[in-house]
Amino acid sequence: MTLNVKGYAAFAAKEDLVPHNFVRRDPRDNDVVIEILYSGVCHSDIHNAYNDWGGAKYPMVPGHEIIGRVTHVGKAVTKFSVGDHVGVGCMVDSCQHCSACEQGLEQYCEEGNTLTYNDVDRHDQMPTYGGYSDKIVVTEKFVVKVPEGLDLKSAAPLLCAGITTWSPLRHWNVGPGSKVAVVGLGGLGHMALKFAKALGADVTLFSRSPNKSEDARRLGAEHIVISTDDAQMKAVYNQFDLIIDTVPYVHDLKPYIPTLALNGTLVLVGYLGELDPVLNSAPLVLGRKSVAGSVIGGIAETQEMMNFCGEHGITSDVEMINMQDINDAWQRMLKSDVKYRFVIDIASLKA
Amino acid sequence: MTLNVKGYAAFAAKEDLVPHNFVRRDPRDNDVVIEILYSGVCHSDIHNAYNDWGGAKYPMVPGHEIIGRVTHVGKAVTKFSVGDHVGVGCMVDSCQHCSACEQGLEQYCEEGNTLTYNDVDRHDQMPTYGGYSDKIVVTEKFVVKVPEGLDLKSAAPLLCAGITTWSPLRHWNVGPGSKVAVVGLGGLGHMALKFAKALGADVTLFSRSPNKSEDARRLGAEHIVISTDDAQMKAVYNQFDLIIDTVPYVHDLKPYIPTLALNGTLVLVGYLGELDPVLNSAPLVLGRKSVAGSVIGGIAETQEMMNFCGEHGITSDVEMINMQDINDAWQRMLKSDVKYRFVIDIASLKA
Repeated sequence: MTLNVKGYAAFAAKEDLVPHNFVRRDPRDNDVVIEILYSGVCHSDIHNAYNDWGGAKYPMVPGHEIIGRVTHVGKAVTKFSVGDHVGVGCMVDSCQHCSACEQGLEQYCEEGNTLTYNDVDRHDQMPTYGGYSDKIVVTEKFVVKVPEGLDLKSAAPLLCAGITTWSPLRHWNVGPGSKVAVVGLGGLGHMALKFAKALGADVTLFSRSPNKSEDARRLGAEHIVISTDDAQMKAVYNQFDLIIDTVPYVHDLKPYIPTLALNGTLVLVGYLGELDPVLNSAPLVLGRKSVAGSVIGGIAETQEMMNFCGEHGITSDVEMINMQDINDAWQRMLKSDVKYRFVIDIASLKA
Repeated sequence: MTLNVKGYAAFAAKEDLVPHNFVRRDPRDNDVVIEILYSGVCHSDIHNAYNDWGGAKYPMVPGHEIIGRVTHVGKAVTKFSVGDHVGVGCMVDSCQHCSACEQGLEQYCEEGNTLTYNDVDRHDQMPTYGGYSDKIVVTEKFVVKVPEGLDLKSAAPLLCAGITTWSPLRHWNVGPGSKVAVVGLGGLGHMALKFAKALGADVTLFSRSPNKSEDARRLGAEHIVISTDDAQMKAVYNQFDLIIDTVPYVHDLKPYIPTLALNGTLVLVGYLGELDPVLNSAPLVLGRKSVAGSVIGGIAETQEMMNFCGEHGITSDVEMINMQDINDAWQRMLKSDVKYRFVIDIASLKA
């Protein structure tokens, strides 16, 4: 079986994505072949293609928020059948034997997991290519089921934006009685609001501008706090059990720390880099507060999230685009001009 | 009952402590009067007297590691009788009605607890004076029992150095199977080693010099890692569930973060101030690691620690001094020349 794939690829940093045809590996016994229907567009697609984090491998086919339909299963596959609607996120493999993998936390695989794109397969050393394409081959362990009835288009961003916020909400035991705040209202932030609300928490959005209030309330926030307003910030000192900070660039954490409750945690999910300006230990020490980080989530908790979304009818707020619109979409994302996630209709690739 | 007290006080920043006689409040119904036998000498005594943290009130009678004998109980006192050996730590009161106080975490009292010295009583607004004196009056709620058989002299530092390290070990659930590392081998660090070992953890000391190895092993460390040796540091990457950082001055936390295990926490207990140089979020995010702080402990957990010390025969390693030696002792502490805590024999005040 030779898998000829149509897709879009970056061939150099900061150049437009262009059509690119390539071949996927022959499916192995534990592989699932997926016809991709929808692919979410994540900010890290731009970072990777622009080589902002280094290590870019070209041609690069981005995309790690994948929804599709199973078209073939290897003979050792047990979880999936042809025709199933499935999802694939940021990882397509991991070592499967380290302590993290044994706990179902493949995102923290001690040997490094295999990323869905801009990486190499750990068995055949072939490059991995992502969801801006019409087919993908993935070991069944890294594929999740889409629950019956969930809208497929708007489910795509659950695979990265969703799980990235779901995992810390679950790890820090958010539920009824919890007070949760979210910093940043983008792809991640809008999912954090929806999930925290659905988990029963009292939810606050920190925002720099009041014009996001209406949207934030619709998405699940009970309260909006303007983070540049000292009086509003002081009014929420010692309040939050968990702050999910989704901001994707360097920013000052100091104003948020005093708003943590005793034993509260501020968890960074959107930014990798220096925590500049410096933090001060005093509010951490004098309130047993923590600054932590979290990245995506394990496969078992991704399936748990998908099931929760099925039960609660939760998906992302999306704007559908054709594959041919991707370069414009990226430019709009760089201006934060999207509510709240672009999703590519992969059918457009056939056009 | 007029309580005339002999003590030593600072009358200005960086001046020697001198003899100072003063009057304690008449005991209230829920008060215990304590004849002080021993008073530990904590680094924060120097910080406070030198006004390093601002807010110094003179004359200042330092001392918040107090062991004594009950000589009088108010008529509402139920826990103590005359003759009991008791301890008093860093706090002598709190609001008693906030959420933190209701959880027995008076150290995080939302209205601010009342410190043992350099503070004012919340009922009569009289200044509080500490343990460098021969008597103290404390509401029974803030007094703990010294278990039978525990050496009274070397028990004094438990009330600050002990509880400051005990509380995070307990909060972060250290026990058999835990891997704990300690940064800094002083008054706090040597207690952290003893407690972590007695709780069943596998214990490592991070040290800048190898000459502390023998002592560290005697105190409970299984492993010594020279923190300036890159190869030794790399060999312990992803190891520690909890790092107790007792260093009392600004220092770079970056070398320690990679040695935290998945879900691990570095907890600062010795330093209040800017976390300079800046941290980087990447190792936090990519390993779900935390940087946290913790201060002393609540009264219930202080009693729990005292009982544990009684059961396991744990006290501090001390060097006894007379009250008249205090100024020399402080000079030695400023050079880290003490193993591991000075304790004042308060009988020397009568000389």
